[in-house]
Amino acid sequence: MGNLLLAIDIGGTKLAIGLAQPEAFAASGQIELVHKEPIPQPGTPEVVIPYVVHRTRELLERMPGTVASMGISIGGPLDHLTGTVVNFPHLPGWRDIPLCAEFSRLLGVPAYLDNDANLGALAEHGFGAGRGARDMVYLTISTGIGGGVIIGGELLHGVASGAGEVGHITVATEGPRCSCGNHGCLEVMASGTAIARRAREALRSASSNGTILRDICDGDLERIRAEDVVEAMRAGDALARELWEETAEYLAIGLGSIIHVLSPEVIVLGGGVGRIGEELLEPVRRRLRDHVFYIPLEKIRVVTAGLGHDSALIGAMRLGMTEHRLIR
Amino acid sequence: MGNLLLAIDIGGTKLAIGLAQPEAFAASGQIELVHKEPIPQPGTPEVVIPYVVHRTRELLERMPGTVASMGISIGGPLDHLTGTVVNFPHLPGWRDIPLCAEFSRLLGVPAYLDNDANLGALAEHGFGAGRGARDMVYLTISTGIGGGVIIGGELLHGVASGAGEVGHITVATEGPRCSCGNHGCLEVMASGTAIARRAREALRSASSNGTILRDICDGDLERIRAEDVVEAMRAGDALARELWEETAEYLAIGLGSIIHVLSPEVIVLGGGVGRIGEELLEPVRRRLRDHVFYIPLEKIRVVTAGLGHDSALIGAMRLGMTEHRLIR
Repeated sequence: MGNLLLAIDIGGTKLAIGLAQPEAFAASGQIELVHKEPIPQPGTPEVVIPYVVHRTRELLERMPGTVASMGISIGGPLDHLTGTVVNFPHLPGWRDIPLCAEFSRLLGVPAYLDNDANLGALAEHGFGAGRGARDMVYLTISTGIGGGVIIGGELLHGVASGAGEVGHITVATEGPRCSCGNHGCLEVMASGTAIARRAREALRSASSNGTILRDICDGDLERIRAEDVVEAMRAGDALARELWEETAEYLAIGLGSIIHVLSPEVIVLGGGVGRIGEELLEPVRRRLRDHVFYIPLEKIRVVTAGLGHDSALIGAMRLGMTEHRLIR
Repeated sequence: MGNLLLAIDIGGTKLAIGLAQPEAFAASGQIELVHKEPIPQPGTPEVVIPYVVHRTRELLERMPGTVASMGISIGGPLDHLTGTVVNFPHLPGWRDIPLCAEFSRLLGVPAYLDNDANLGALAEHGFGAGRGARDMVYLTISTGIGGGVIIGGELLHGVASGAGEVGHITVATEGPRCSCGNHGCLEVMASGTAIARRAREALRSASSNGTILRDICDGDLERIRAEDVVEAMRAGDALARELWEETAEYLAIGLGSIIHVLSPEVIVLGGGVGRIGEELLEPVRRRLRDHVFYIPLEKIRVVTAGLGHDSALIGAMRLGMTEHRLIR
């Protein structure tokens, strides 16, 4: 058996590879060697898979040892049981790719696969804000909204790995159509993309005078981003504050529904919007009190993610470690 | 160790006591001896608890043996870990009652407690429509809407036993206030009480002429019940059909949110409205296709409960049996 853990995070634009010693990683979640670079072009499996193998072998010269297990993160529909990528829409040619079997064959190690949001949940549960929780829900709020559910300390996959698709809970019955097809999903109301869209809609309406949001985007509404709304809110802008409170309201409705199904010990908010911190947590917690009455909210922690952008890589490494039962 | 299982269901008006042999019950979920009677008055714990003990001893003369374990169902907030009833609002004096400790002391057997909706889920999972499912959600749709969640074959309780409060998922953002305090809960839109309320509202509006619903209630709108809407729909009444489709839509929004969180193998609908069967399942399944896209609905069974009114008693017996590890 080898003495190193290997983790790979395949993103739409970036590739990350990590190597760590099991004991050190299990204790802290720290990855000793992290290598990041752009995805090799043209990004097809035929190019990416051998490239990862090549690069991993190079990294093993800098951190000598043999690999015991490999965890892989990718952001798209997959079958974690067979280790197959069903579809990774951000890169060409990634359809029905038996990724674990390929890497296992090329590197001679057992490989395990899950999606980036589930692995973010696994990382936060192991080493971040959900450490030690029995039941935990993780939401990553950035361009879209994804998530992962931990029950009894284990990732819940559900039928067709569908568990944790918390971005598609309905939070606005009369809301606009989401890219998924449903109307008024949490994602289409409260993601970074949705915050920017709602800001544009508000600025187009006649009643939205006297906001600095117009200046921030130089009058070009198409340039508005969620970050601009946050900046304007911090500067005391009333419209931006209203947009932010609406965001918190949609999140509170969604978290309220999650709480009424699972009553988890902790809900962890990650991703670019989720990691904003107290400015998001305060209105979300306050508005949750309008939606949850039968379950004592003081017993359910709603917190900011403890890990940063590497959480999918950390989760992939934890996956490889625990699936291979090196260390629990 | 005893050779019989004992189950008790304490309701607001009815008391049920069951006795069964573990092997026979484990094989079929059939309870050999079921005794039902009105709750002894005035219904306080001081009266009900000794009465149950007395009646159980009488029943043991008809079915000789000694009790190995006892499962108890009650319909209100409780702490299953300590076996304490927090509050049973339908009977006087049921606040902070250490029910398991009391019965254990009086009958000399281990006792286990859970709420009626969770035990309905446990019964359906053991012997009903969810038999053998890994992950299952049970909804009991009658006066209100309750439920229970099974993950990995086990009941999920969550913080403060709050898991499975699926009646309080938000399904209508602009909906009326629920008795819980939230607006537009599944319960306040799709329970039997809610169907009757929406029927009354529709009949009061000017545009609802030519419906037989007025005749069914003899023009007294206060007398309208959910059953009347079902009867009118079966007779081809257009307004009743519309009210029923709305009910299915609210249920589909709620089940859609549950599916996006858990992706369970099976969703079981019980209770008076839930057990209506295909007339409810067909529009719910059809409308689910407007709300769930990323998870293949053909892999998630939405079905009618397989057990009848005794499901809480059956669940209580299964609880006693499995908690005491007589038979899994």
